[in-house]
Amino acid sequence: MKLEAIYHKPYSEFAFSIDPDTLVIRLRTAKNDINTCILIYHEKYDSSQRGKAKMKKVASDEMFDYYEVELNVGIKRIKYMFYLEDNYSIKWYSSDGFFDYMPQWGQFTHSYICKEDILEEIEWFRNSTIYQIFPDRFAKLPPDTSNLGNRTVHGGNIKGIIARLDYLVTLGVDVIYFNPIFKSESYHRYDVVDYYEIDPVFGDKRELKELIDLCHKNGIKIIFDGVFNHSGDKFFAFKDILEKGEKSKYVNWYHISSFPVEVYPRPNYECFSYYGGMPKLNTGNPETAQYLLDVVRYWTVEFGVDGWRLDAADEVDRKFWRKLRDMLKSLNRDTVLIGEIFDESSSWLWGDQFDSVTNYPLKAMINDLFAYRSVDAEIFRMRINSYIMKLNKKVLNSLVNVISTHDTPRFLTLCDGDEKRFGLAVVFQFTFPGVPLIYYGDEIGMEGEGDPDCRRPMIWDEAKWNRKNLELYRFLIDLRKKFDSLRIGEYGELPVIGCKGILAYRRGLGEDGIIVIMNTLDQKARITVETGEFFDAVKAFKSLKDDEMLAVERKRINLCLKPFEWRIYKASGELETLT
Amino acid sequence: MKLEAIYHKPYSEFAFSIDPDTLVIRLRTAKNDINTCILIYHEKYDSSQRGKAKMKKVASDEMFDYYEVELNVGIKRIKYMFYLEDNYSIKWYSSDGFFDYMPQWGQFTHSYICKEDILEEIEWFRNSTIYQIFPDRFAKLPPDTSNLGNRTVHGGNIKGIIARLDYLVTLGVDVIYFNPIFKSESYHRYDVVDYYEIDPVFGDKRELKELIDLCHKNGIKIIFDGVFNHSGDKFFAFKDILEKGEKSKYVNWYHISSFPVEVYPRPNYECFSYYGGMPKLNTGNPETAQYLLDVVRYWTVEFGVDGWRLDAADEVDRKFWRKLRDMLKSLNRDTVLIGEIFDESSSWLWGDQFDSVTNYPLKAMINDLFAYRSVDAEIFRMRINSYIMKLNKKVLNSLVNVISTHDTPRFLTLCDGDEKRFGLAVVFQFTFPGVPLIYYGDEIGMEGEGDPDCRRPMIWDEAKWNRKNLELYRFLIDLRKKFDSLRIGEYGELPVIGCKGILAYRRGLGEDGIIVIMNTLDQKARITVETGEFFDAVKAFKSLKDDEMLAVERKRINLCLKPFEWRIYKASGELETLT
Repeated sequence: MKLEAIYHKPYSEFAFSIDPDTLVIRLRTAKNDINTCILIYHEKYDSSQRGKAKMKKVASDEMFDYYEVELNVGIKRIKYMFYLEDNYSIKWYSSDGFFDYMPQWGQFTHSYICKEDILEEIEWFRNSTIYQIFPDRFAKLPPDTSNLGNRTVHGGNIKGIIARLDYLVTLGVDVIYFNPIFKSESYHRYDVVDYYEIDPVFGDKRELKELIDLCHKNGIKIIFDGVFNHSGDKFFAFKDILEKGEKSKYVNWYHISSFPVEVYPRPNYECFSYYGGMPKLNTGNPETAQYLLDVVRYWTVEFGVDGWRLDAADEVDRKFWRKLRDMLKSLNRDTVLIGEIFDESSSWLWGDQFDSVTNYPLKAMINDLFAYRSVDAEIFRMRINSYIMKLNKKVLNSLVNVISTHDTPRFLTLCDGDEKRFGLAVVFQFTFPGVPLIYYGDEIGMEGEGDPDCRRPMIWDEAKWNRKNLELYRFLIDLRKKFDSLRIGEYGELPVIGCKGILAYRRGLGEDGIIVIMNTLDQKARITVETGEFFDAVKAFKSLKDDEMLAVERKRINLCLKPFEWRIYKASGELETLT
Repeated sequence: MKLEAIYHKPYSEFAFSIDPDTLVIRLRTAKNDINTCILIYHEKYDSSQRGKAKMKKVASDEMFDYYEVELNVGIKRIKYMFYLEDNYSIKWYSSDGFFDYMPQWGQFTHSYICKEDILEEIEWFRNSTIYQIFPDRFAKLPPDTSNLGNRTVHGGNIKGIIARLDYLVTLGVDVIYFNPIFKSESYHRYDVVDYYEIDPVFGDKRELKELIDLCHKNGIKIIFDGVFNHSGDKFFAFKDILEKGEKSKYVNWYHISSFPVEVYPRPNYECFSYYGGMPKLNTGNPETAQYLLDVVRYWTVEFGVDGWRLDAADEVDRKFWRKLRDMLKSLNRDTVLIGEIFDESSSWLWGDQFDSVTNYPLKAMINDLFAYRSVDAEIFRMRINSYIMKLNKKVLNSLVNVISTHDTPRFLTLCDGDEKRFGLAVVFQFTFPGVPLIYYGDEIGMEGEGDPDCRRPMIWDEAKWNRKNLELYRFLIDLRKKFDSLRIGEYGELPVIGCKGILAYRRGLGEDGIIVIMNTLDQKARITVETGEFFDAVKAFKSLKDDEMLAVERKRINLCLKPFEWRIYKASGELETLT
């Protein structure tokens, strides 16, 4: 047994609760090393309440297997250890290490399942498809087709969005996320001048209220972009410092290393990156923190904002985020907090900070498989597994899955314009656990290199739309609405025989289950997918694209895929075509 | 290279900041597997600010080596990866896994060192020696020597403590921690009836104020026991439920599963353990939480309490502890919060919850080595290392190190009355990082089995005192006051040649350093201790017990230890006796 590979840690992604009665317990082992893994547990104060639970291998990556059990046995205070078997030996693993016999002391402990510390899913959010609007570039009324530069204000406005709202309603999206709209000096508005005003180019508060009310009437929720890591350098507090220097009463609102304040050659104050126009706010200063909390309260209460996407969230202190969360949740438990984080973000997702994050690590994997083709489907699957096992299980269906954003080249461009690979990535985005986000224009086949080229004006000339692409988006948005399994169904890989370039996975199981199969290669593939124990009573799978029926034979289905073809099947108890 | 053994995780005990300019980065590898471990880093937004830092092997346990570096290079936003060499290969380790070449992408990230998220040490607390008083059993005025049972009220009181305060002042302790003193029905008072009153048996508020003022005048701080996991069943809110059942407006103050409330055969409401007299409070109910916060505020503000030891802390939700922390720290940053936790508690010690915890895991190791003799010095050292590597480095000097408490048999009894092994444990307790706690009476050699026998009345008949033991305590308390190194000096093992039963470790280094050497075996040991690079300029070590000088020869010292003998040496730049 490879003992060095075995890992467990209480109060981490290896032991956490998902509801007041259920503790998820995971164990990592070396790959293909262990035959049996059993959890041995008892109640903390009453060891007569004891038991064993077989742990299931739920994921594997390049080096490790992951075993998991959802322990729901009527106890909240749990002492536990692991019993392990390989071909040659047996071991007990407790907090004191490994033993050849069952140790009497030193178990791992989860002292009490506190319901207050469990991340709660926000149902409306988890069930959504998000549409991201970059306000300056989406729609303008009256329209203006003059050819403007990438870095200038184009003048997209609220009136324009209202005029185009039907388009979004028809598309079927549930949420609009707006990049910043507060008054600022730049077209992107990440350098806020006034957190209490919307940018006059964009419109006024009456129009904004009208837009939000219209959206709400159409069942569309609104997410604002909260830029609290930094302000613009024209924000009143920073301006005061520029004017009064050390004597300004706002010196503690920023991180200024010396006076006078200077921008060149590099700012002598902390910034977002090194942009002098974006001085970093000191959220550790209670006055500053309170100001920003009041801003969030104002827009949430007065305009009915349903959630906040929080810019550069991993560069702001967690105490501020906890305060913001407490404040927002006391207004409305259903308000969503989404951290913009580019890296692995599990430490923000335990219930005290964010409900979700921008899932950039997933995007990096999607890039590698579908756009760059630098990894194959097998490596991709293993990376996905490795990633899932780092996360709170409870958050998986709420992560914001992106393939394009205002900060990255458009995905179609990353695919060198290859619609097939683009389509596969979109299918993956909409069928993998999480909330898909459509960056405006991706759905009609817009292209664009990195910022600012990815922020071209939305194309409203339908003649220039990629209709097939739009149909794919409509189909997938619709599918997610129709099938619970695509929103809450457990994700699991399905073994594939016959070709290494195939991704096959399920959402949910039994007759509610859906399976997704895609050929990531530029060649035909004749394959067998093992549907196994998860679809025991299932007799057939029906293609949701074309109603084709596929019979299950000996827990397997056989099919042939064209290059880059994808299929989505719904399980069926009958061999007949479903209605 | 044993890749499966290699472990790192951002935002964990493997990557955390200890001040706004310093990020501690750790890497775990298989034991004796790696020759070289180098951190490669760059600034998140400016990769021209880059560098390498050699990581040092700082600890080893039975299976792993731990490498560490304190990165202080003027950047707060850090991308990093590791470069590793063994005898046969080289590897780069990034968040994407292992590579044979230096990867361009996928580094680990610490996005920003937020000073607000760093645990701050409380200097006065870290420098203290604590004396724990079990109020009913410590001192009584007028005295009463009648022979009372273990489970009845003995009547220890404030007047008694005031009368004995000189004893504590002379002993030299800096803090008194009182087990609960609020009004309750039992002698132990963990079943509070009124959080706003002190128990009349113990005295009144005027007397308490007098005691606290007297203590403060003598430089002694006061820590109260906060029992917020549960109340007593005579507490007004629970009494109201017992009277009015479901109609009580306090039903949400507890966790009651059905009505009417019943105690037998088992309570139909949640309790501490299964004690019907200790119903578990619902700290998730904002009203209940606010009530308890107000209680803490009242005693802290009105009586000048310096800190709170929080009972059953791991069974209460973390949101409540964060609120309590925010409230207390806004009153006074120097108020200390100590969680009573029996198991590994690193997840409470990242700056948002507790400043310290009861260090029961260390006690378990001390038990095994010195009392039960179930492990040898070598296993003990490795367990210590394994434990240290699980913790926030910043908290190590503030953990409350205990060998006896009101919940455990007295340590002398665990040693079957063997004063030598008891003495070794005390020396270890006072010289290992952390704040030593003396459970009343341990210092004069009191014995006692588990609760309630460990709560016998304090012996005030000096004829019955173990004078030698008391001298040892006075000596060690004094030593901790004299030498910074014993309070803040880095802990590190020293290699020992010649005998396996020896513990040798340093606190600090160079001429400020102190080394502790103890023979855990019942036989003489002639040994060589390698003082190595840590004491490069040091010419000799002076015994702090008897001024004996020991010359350093080729970075080693040679000595002979009697069975169970201990030595504490201070480094010296001179060979002459220090003054």
